[in-house]
Amino acid sequence: MGETMQAVVVDGDAPLVLGEVPKPELRANDVMIEVKAAGLNRADLIQRKGMYPPPPGASEIMGLECAGIITEVGAGVSRWKVGDRVCALLAGGGYAEFAAVDEGSVLPIPNTMDFADAACLTEAMMTVWANVFQRCQLQESEVFLCHGGTSGIGVMAIQMARHAGAGAIYTTAGSAEKCKVATDLGADAAFNYRETDFAEEISTRGGVDVVLDMVGGDYVQKNIDILKVNGRVCNIAYQNGPVVELNLMKLMLKRAILTGTTLRARLEEEKRVIRDAVERDFWPAVVNGTIKPILDSTFPIAEAEAAQAKMAAGGHIGKIVLLR
Amino acid sequence: MGETMQAVVVDGDAPLVLGEVPKPELRANDVMIEVKAAGLNRADLIQRKGMYPPPPGASEIMGLECAGIITEVGAGVSRWKVGDRVCALLAGGGYAEFAAVDEGSVLPIPNTMDFADAACLTEAMMTVWANVFQRCQLQESEVFLCHGGTSGIGVMAIQMARHAGAGAIYTTAGSAEKCKVATDLGADAAFNYRETDFAEEISTRGGVDVVLDMVGGDYVQKNIDILKVNGRVCNIAYQNGPVVELNLMKLMLKRAILTGTTLRARLEEEKRVIRDAVERDFWPAVVNGTIKPILDSTFPIAEAEAAQAKMAAGGHIGKIVLLR
Repeated sequence: MGETMQAVVVDGDAPLVLGEVPKPELRANDVMIEVKAAGLNRADLIQRKGMYPPPPGASEIMGLECAGIITEVGAGVSRWKVGDRVCALLAGGGYAEFAAVDEGSVLPIPNTMDFADAACLTEAMMTVWANVFQRCQLQESEVFLCHGGTSGIGVMAIQMARHAGAGAIYTTAGSAEKCKVATDLGADAAFNYRETDFAEEISTRGGVDVVLDMVGGDYVQKNIDILKVNGRVCNIAYQNGPVVELNLMKLMLKRAILTGTTLRARLEEEKRVIRDAVERDFWPAVVNGTIKPILDSTFPIAEAEAAQAKMAAGGHIGKIVLLR
Repeated sequence: MGETMQAVVVDGDAPLVLGEVPKPELRANDVMIEVKAAGLNRADLIQRKGMYPPPPGASEIMGLECAGIITEVGAGVSRWKVGDRVCALLAGGGYAEFAAVDEGSVLPIPNTMDFADAACLTEAMMTVWANVFQRCQLQESEVFLCHGGTSGIGVMAIQMARHAGAGAIYTTAGSAEKCKVATDLGADAAFNYRETDFAEEISTRGGVDVVLDMVGGDYVQKNIDILKVNGRVCNIAYQNGPVVELNLMKLMLKRAILTGTTLRARLEEEKRVIRDAVERDFWPAVVNGTIKPILDSTFPIAEAEAAQAKMAAGGHIGKIVLLR
């Protein structure tokens, strides 16, 4: 069966454990990364339950991003070399000793940044760019609402919108502590959804141009209702469910857009476009520390079960990362 | 009260009659059109019931488009002169002797075209461009579905999509006769919605990139379900209602867009952009007869009641027009 490696394996409902699996194959445009740190994403929990299967050709192992050291490069790889410290977006396979990925999904780790911090960046920044900037075209001085302001996505969305010159940034979070973190990161106002109705608060303030939402459920109508003319709502998940009753009249009268995207299933060429944009528009701010990785906690990879339990509990702020 | 003119007046639920009303005022960038023909739109019926009030500053009189002769131009008007034969998009006021409108909403009537035919063009062509080409960016060789294929909008959408090089054009209509008209106009297939499920038919054929819909109701989910990746659905009305239960998961997984727009409430600058695009990209085809006005029937303006009754009954194909 060729070379093997260690990886976190799913065995029905049993707790996650490390097992021996085949090492990924290296295609011509791939780099092989020895994983030092792997970021958790909520999608991992859904995949584990069998509801978010990897796209065709992708690793069956969980893990949508990693940071590590390149150990091998394919014949077609031009930019990277063995020994480079990199972080990468993965279609799967991060919870492992090695991950192989197209060179267009890879970014260089800034010199002074460690692997744990670097594992917080790629999935969130590429998701934010693809949704907020590419799909929704957030413009300078436009008003932006990001739900889940202290999620792995939220902490990056706030910082990136601030860096891009958004006119005002609103966010929602589930506690006063989380709201404080969000405003410290650059949000102009953070609404504790357990205590206030974000839609009322934001209507009073004049509405928003762009909403990034991962909640779904009854948030969808509220998101539409608070849009300004030509506003856009983009969903990257539906944690409260994708089935909703909507009155679409306001969508039409405001000439608004309801959309959503996922990153994982896209072609490698599309991911390369997104990587290029993140590197061009936001990576300099990562390098100089203006945009910061927000690391909640780290777990040894052998304790992936505990790491996922922490994410499921929802008390975290920023990223949970596995270390090898 | 200054000059007066004749216009169709609404008096509660009483039948429409001609009455004496103030002649519209001419602003600096307006032209005054002596109306020879006025196109009916379904929105007129809704406005009559009090549910689609004119935007601030617009005429209270029904009528969203007209064709006629310019009798006066404002001090700021550069392009048009008294005597020009023109057709125009109106924010209201078409069912009248005179209509005043910003010069940017006006198009020249081709030499060989009469006023009745010219009154079929502006509202439909500008609506189609603003939704199918501006908002949804229909590209050459993409697949297009237009509901209501023999409505005033539908007959223009089919012809414009064909002219723009759409890969395939599907449409729905309510009878075999209407389906025949739609395919004669350039649709590749027309589905009689009383007999077949358009969503099944189109799924079998591989789906669509862009949908123009005025039906709403249970069409909305079907429209989403038959989209290809990166597909777009645009509503210009919700004749079966704007309140719908939707499963948005496919919207996200296909990175699709659900949107809608109206023309009437837009700024005059925006209408000018739309007029310019229609004139640049489609008016030459109107002039040379490739794109044809589809006139269902004409009524003397004094018989506006009968004209609207015909539209409400729904048997028409193309435009119903009032003549003076």
